[in-house]
Amino acid sequence: MSLQNPVFIPGPTNMPLAIRHAIDLPTIDHRGPEFGDILVPARDGVRQVLKSSSAEIFIFPATGTGGWETAITNTLSAGDKVLACRNGMFSHKWIDMCQRHNLDVQVVSAQWGTGLPAAEYEEILKADTDHQIKVVLATHNETATGVRSDIAAVRKALDAAGHPALLFVDGVSSIGSMDFRMDEWGVDVAVTGSQKGFMLPPGLAIIGFSIKAMAMTGSAQLPRTYFDLSDMQDGYSAVAYPYTPPVALLNGLKVACDMLLDEGLENVFARHARIANGVRAAVHAWGMELCAQSPDVYSDSVSAIMTPKGTEIVGLAHKKYGVAFGGGLGDVAGKLFRIGHLGMLTDVLALSGIATAEMVMADLDMPIKLGSGVAAAQEVYRKS
Amino acid sequence: MSLQNPVFIPGPTNMPLAIRHAIDLPTIDHRGPEFGDILVPARDGVRQVLKSSSAEIFIFPATGTGGWETAITNTLSAGDKVLACRNGMFSHKWIDMCQRHNLDVQVVSAQWGTGLPAAEYEEILKADTDHQIKVVLATHNETATGVRSDIAAVRKALDAAGHPALLFVDGVSSIGSMDFRMDEWGVDVAVTGSQKGFMLPPGLAIIGFSIKAMAMTGSAQLPRTYFDLSDMQDGYSAVAYPYTPPVALLNGLKVACDMLLDEGLENVFARHARIANGVRAAVHAWGMELCAQSPDVYSDSVSAIMTPKGTEIVGLAHKKYGVAFGGGLGDVAGKLFRIGHLGMLTDVLALSGIATAEMVMADLDMPIKLGSGVAAAQEVYRKS
Amino acid sequence: MSLQNPVFIPGPTNMPLAIRHAIDLPTIDHRGPEFGDILVPARDGVRQVLKSSSAEIFIFPATGTGGWETAITNTLSAGDKVLACRNGMFSHKWIDMCQRHNLDVQVVSAQWGTGLPAAEYEEILKADTDHQIKVVLATHNETATGVRSDIAAVRKALDAAGHPALLFVDGVSSIGSMDFRMDEWGVDVAVTGSQKGFMLPPGLAIIGFSIKAMAMTGSAQLPRTYFDLSDMQDGYSAVAYPYTPPVALLNGLKVACDMLLDEGLENVFARHARIANGVRAAVHAWGMELCAQSPDVYSDSVSAIMTPKGTEIVGLAHKKYGVAFGGGLGDVAGKLFRIGHLGMLTDVLALSGIATAEMVMADLDMPIKLGSGVAAAQEVYRKS
Amino acid sequence: MSLQNPVFIPGPTNMPLAIRHAIDLPTIDHRGPEFGDILVPARDGVRQVLKSSSAEIFIFPATGTGGWETAITNTLSAGDKVLACRNGMFSHKWIDMCQRHNLDVQVVSAQWGTGLPAAEYEEILKADTDHQIKVVLATHNETATGVRSDIAAVRKALDAAGHPALLFVDGVSSIGSMDFRMDEWGVDVAVTGSQKGFMLPPGLAIIGFSIKAMAMTGSAQLPRTYFDLSDMQDGYSAVAYPYTPPVALLNGLKVACDMLLDEGLENVFARHARIANGVRAAVHAWGMELCAQSPDVYSDSVSAIMTPKGTEIVGLAHKKYGVAFGGGLGDVAGKLFRIGHLGMLTDVLALSGIATAEMVMADLDMPIKLGSGVAAAQEVYRKS
Repeated sequence: MSLQNPVFIPGPTNMPLAIRHAIDLPTIDHRGPEFGDILVPARDGVRQVLKSSSAEIFIFPATGTGGWETAITNTLSAGDKVLACRNGMFSHKWIDMCQRHNLDVQVVSAQWGTGLPAAEYEEILKADTDHQIKVVLATHNETATGVRSDIAAVRKALDAAGHPALLFVDGVSSIGSMDFRMDEWGVDVAVTGSQKGFMLPPGLAIIGFSIKAMAMTGSAQLPRTYFDLSDMQDGYSAVAYPYTPPVALLNGLKVACDMLLDEGLENVFARHARIANGVRAAVHAWGMELCAQSPDVYSDSVSAIMTPKGTEIVGLAHKKYGVAFGGGLGDVAGKLFRIGHLGMLTDVLALSGIATAEMVMADLDMPIKLGSGVAAAQEVYRKS
Repeated sequence: MSLQNPVFIPGPTNMPLAIRHAIDLPTIDHRGPEFGDILVPARDGVRQVLKSSSAEIFIFPATGTGGWETAITNTLSAGDKVLACRNGMFSHKWIDMCQRHNLDVQVVSAQWGTGLPAAEYEEILKADTDHQIKVVLATHNETATGVRSDIAAVRKALDAAGHPALLFVDGVSSIGSMDFRMDEWGVDVAVTGSQKGFMLPPGLAIIGFSIKAMAMTGSAQLPRTYFDLSDMQDGYSAVAYPYTPPVALLNGLKVACDMLLDEGLENVFARHARIANGVRAAVHAWGMELCAQSPDVYSDSVSAIMTPKGTEIVGLAHKKYGVAFGGGLGDVAGKLFRIGHLGMLTDVLALSGIATAEMVMADLDMPIKLGSGVAAAQEVYRKS
Repeated sequence: MSLQNPVFIPGPTNMPLAIRHAIDLPTIDHRGPEFGDILVPARDGVRQVLKSSSAEIFIFPATGTGGWETAITNTLSAGDKVLACRNGMFSHKWIDMCQRHNLDVQVVSAQWGTGLPAAEYEEILKADTDHQIKVVLATHNETATGVRSDIAAVRKALDAAGHPALLFVDGVSSIGSMDFRMDEWGVDVAVTGSQKGFMLPPGLAIIGFSIKAMAMTGSAQLPRTYFDLSDMQDGYSAVAYPYTPPVALLNGLKVACDMLLDEGLENVFARHARIANGVRAAVHAWGMELCAQSPDVYSDSVSAIMTPKGTEIVGLAHKKYGVAFGGGLGDVAGKLFRIGHLGMLTDVLALSGIATAEMVMADLDMPIKLGSGVAAAQEVYRKS
Repeated sequence: MSLQNPVFIPGPTNMPLAIRHAIDLPTIDHRGPEFGDILVPARDGVRQVLKSSSAEIFIFPATGTGGWETAITNTLSAGDKVLACRNGMFSHKWIDMCQRHNLDVQVVSAQWGTGLPAAEYEEILKADTDHQIKVVLATHNETATGVRSDIAAVRKALDAAGHPALLFVDGVSSIGSMDFRMDEWGVDVAVTGSQKGFMLPPGLAIIGFSIKAMAMTGSAQLPRTYFDLSDMQDGYSAVAYPYTPPVALLNGLKVACDMLLDEGLENVFARHARIANGVRAAVHAWGMELCAQSPDVYSDSVSAIMTPKGTEIVGLAHKKYGVAFGGGLGDVAGKLFRIGHLGMLTDVLALSGIATAEMVMADLDMPIKLGSGVAAAQEVYRKS
């Protein structure tokens, strides 16, 4: 496997040099004053990336899964009711976690490849007249299917139902790559990780809590220590951590936020959209279909491309060309392959991924005209 | 704060170049075959460092605190009884975690500065004739007091009492720096982290489970997902993780184990002992006392030095000389300062820490003869 | 300019991670014994890459130009006669250097795009019956035109003429990328640099001297100190340098030689040939011509592609797509652009360069069918 | 040899992290516009460090020796007369170079350990009534003896004699560490390297030419190409190099200048003086003598300490403690050892070097009281 080639998995992403240098930090004293020069701007930067003015930002040495656990264990108690939609592997996993923590999950099943059904949420919420549902879960971007759901619509459903449930959003593979508006959409808990839009290695669970969500932490009975927010708040109030903080990754996060904000969030999103458009144009030129069933749910961070040869494509791309794509997970295992196009990718590198996919598919005797997808993407990249 | 100076906090430690390069790894596909070339030797290496032939090794993106939570949530249920001793900040915190997870903790309080009272453990265990106690907790090295307890003696207490309770050991600041014998001592769960003897940045909770401990996981009712061992085992059986693994840190762990085993564990321990002896000789020359009350409990990874000016020493060392020492925590806050001497330190660098401490204490008008501690340590380092 | 994209200049090349880590070396004592562990294998490795059993290897902190100066100032005296061919910018520059050092250069002019005219050399050497010509210069690979000359044929010309002149070869952009046989071809001085086939940053002039060439150094009268071989030999005999050696780059050179020899020189050359074939197939598909006028002189490290828009292509590729190509130099300025394909490049990255060139040429309204060159290269890369 | 310990050779120095990151730069196009963003500020920064408003700055991929060669070959012709003083190994070597380039060197011999005899220079210059002497050479800081000469006094000698000779100064181990005033002292050529005060790896010869020195280049007949200033000027006028520039080192030089100027040159000099004072206090406490014979010539970048065991000290320090000191060179070989204290050193690290020297001397049965030098240095460092 060549370390020279970029990766096309939907995270962790290719890392820019500035990030790699930021995390190549010698040990400093995490109880000394320099730590504040890292922690404070890192938390502030995340808040801005979330487009929130008031969210409390928590950063755990963990992954997005730890972020999910932080969200539920700090707000809920065994038996509490949660509304969630299963439309892909990652929404499925969050539901599974809730059940293992003895929450009562009302699951809406949607076809993998479709977005969250806001109308169905609205119906259920309207029917929940005694407000048993405490929290609504929503996966902004389903990494397994390349589907971006409409979080604003979920908020509208809550509002239309006049329902007080909180809205918890998994933005792991959207935040920093696609527009996310915590305050405007009334998101109460936003969960993400370091290894996607923030272009860092894995190792950080990054979570934003609204004032309303913070208010729930006092009564939440689910046991927790590692992911306990009050311990973390005590730490933050002393510019410290309740345990050893991952200083270098936090320094990387500070730099990543600076990079995103310096480029401008809207520019970052436009860049992701442009690169994604090129990939989608290639898929179209190949005569293939995305798992995402309509343009309104196309993800700008990952494209899942339907083909029964998905697994072979991933294997051969790795073995013959030293390139990593993503395979199918869960219900869509073996039915697709995925091209990740998030983080610090360029048009030029995206073309190398498209060209590799073409070679692999031709090698597998699929009816692909070499250069066709590349040409379609080139047209997109030339014009934008 | 100069990044040129070594740190003398009791972890995270100064990082060797080979470690820094091992973790400066571009993104690779964590679902591809190369990941196995990292994960498998990393787990094998940890097993050897633990001196175990059969332990199952688990490595979570977390810290030692996450390791504690892994230990208890995978083996116990609410209401289960646990025996523990509070003789420092870190044993205190593990007890607190147990209580927050609704365990019934029988706490033996020992003076901070003393080791675990094996005799008292034995008495309690003998009295527990119906074997209510499921687990005995033991902190091998109390980082807050510089006290190393005798884990073999705790095992003897269990055996003498004929008690079937499992033995869980916090070896965060001992493993990789001081002798640790998982199999010989009958340790059932060993918990450590990446940032101490393994010389890595923080970010990994490293846990070894004995066969007996693994057998408890099936019936354990404490809720868990992030730290769930069965998810992790499923992942490992496919040479993967249930979520995004910290590939670069795992690669660093592989290299760290190679370094420790290539140097030879006994040589590593002897090096730590030699450097620690020098520091202790300096303390003696200064006419000061260690928090650790007798030589049999002296820690080779950290020395806690009694003085009411502990906090000022730490502050001035940082401010005037750019050197980080550790302060007092919990019951000993303000009563001592700590010199960490673990990881990839050298005699030469240890002398710079001792010399700095002398200058700071003189600056604070403490009755210290400049050069006296250095001279005492030099004698130790010259002869060994 | 994105640092994410690979470069397609004909050197310095894209650097592999192992090289970057090898040169990220803290300061060590260049007069201490560790320096020998770097210098000795680095010199040995270079000798093997040159396919010589007996060459003396010299490595100066300089560039290939310094290597040229080393070659002539250590062997010749003012007024000495030298035979050389001008068929590109770099052969021109070496001739110019000889003239500025008061050598008498007999210049054979060949069309840029053709190789060295061995037959003409033979004629001149035969006519030089009193052996006035002391040295014959030959540029193995003209980086400016992408032309590889036949050094074995030059040797045959010398032998056919029974002429005792020494053969000095500029292998800056061939050695480590294309076959080079110092002993078999009877090369007396071979000159190269760190930043091409060795995949290092610029900063090292690397020179091999045959026994015959070494014998000339005693009588050579051209003034020299920095590039003096006897000073350097004195240094090497003490495993040292006459001035401060570039330790980290030398360490990188050691690692680079290991990488080349581990991959196998013939495999390295085959990889370069395959990637070059793909680029040439693309050029053909575009309906364009190489500067190199026939397949026997095609270079495997750089392709120069004829077009009056060469300069604009280079400029727009940089500005719009963040990709660096090479432009025309000297007689071919403005008449071509160059794609470098040497060092640690992959098929996949080469395709991104080809795709970028297509976009740029289309942007400049050149009659290029998008994807056509990519498809031609893909066919090459799929099959090999 | 531990890579953890600092080095105490008089250059190359310990490298700060910012420098190491600045030179860990992927390949960029040295003919593209980004190169100007490196080259221009690097040259400007050097000019400021030299305290010159008008000097032309040249930076060659070479070492200080290459800088000497640049100085003489661009200004002089065979047979030209040069005045120089031999008072150490490095002044000796520059004289030797001049002689090998057929210059007529009038050598003033001074005892090693003394500075340049300005009065003797003045006498000679006054006697040279027909101004045969074209250039006066002066070594600002003799690295071999730890002697700093008074360049202002040399200028005064020239002025007092009313002599038009140019003044060329070797500031390799002074510039960036001790005050250097190119314009005020009327220095015509200043030579330095990257690996001393600039804290970079070796690999750059850095030279400043006054307007008067530039005016000499037209008529200078010594042969040169690699070190030719007119080629380099042509390159610079196009923001380029006549050959492949060492881009990453130049980027490091830019950052190094920023660091020096941000700290403030006077603060940098004061820091060097303070650290040197501590080392000298230690030497005094040991009852030993410096090679430098009086305080007015003490160097702030290196201290040479007289002892017949110099060589053994260097060897044992390396072997037993993994610490690199400098040995004696030339006339003082075996008579001293040297402690380098330049670049990004700290008081704290300096103490580790002093402590190591004490241990080694005690190991060699020299009458050294352990801790005595440390204590003396501590007093210095505490107070300043």
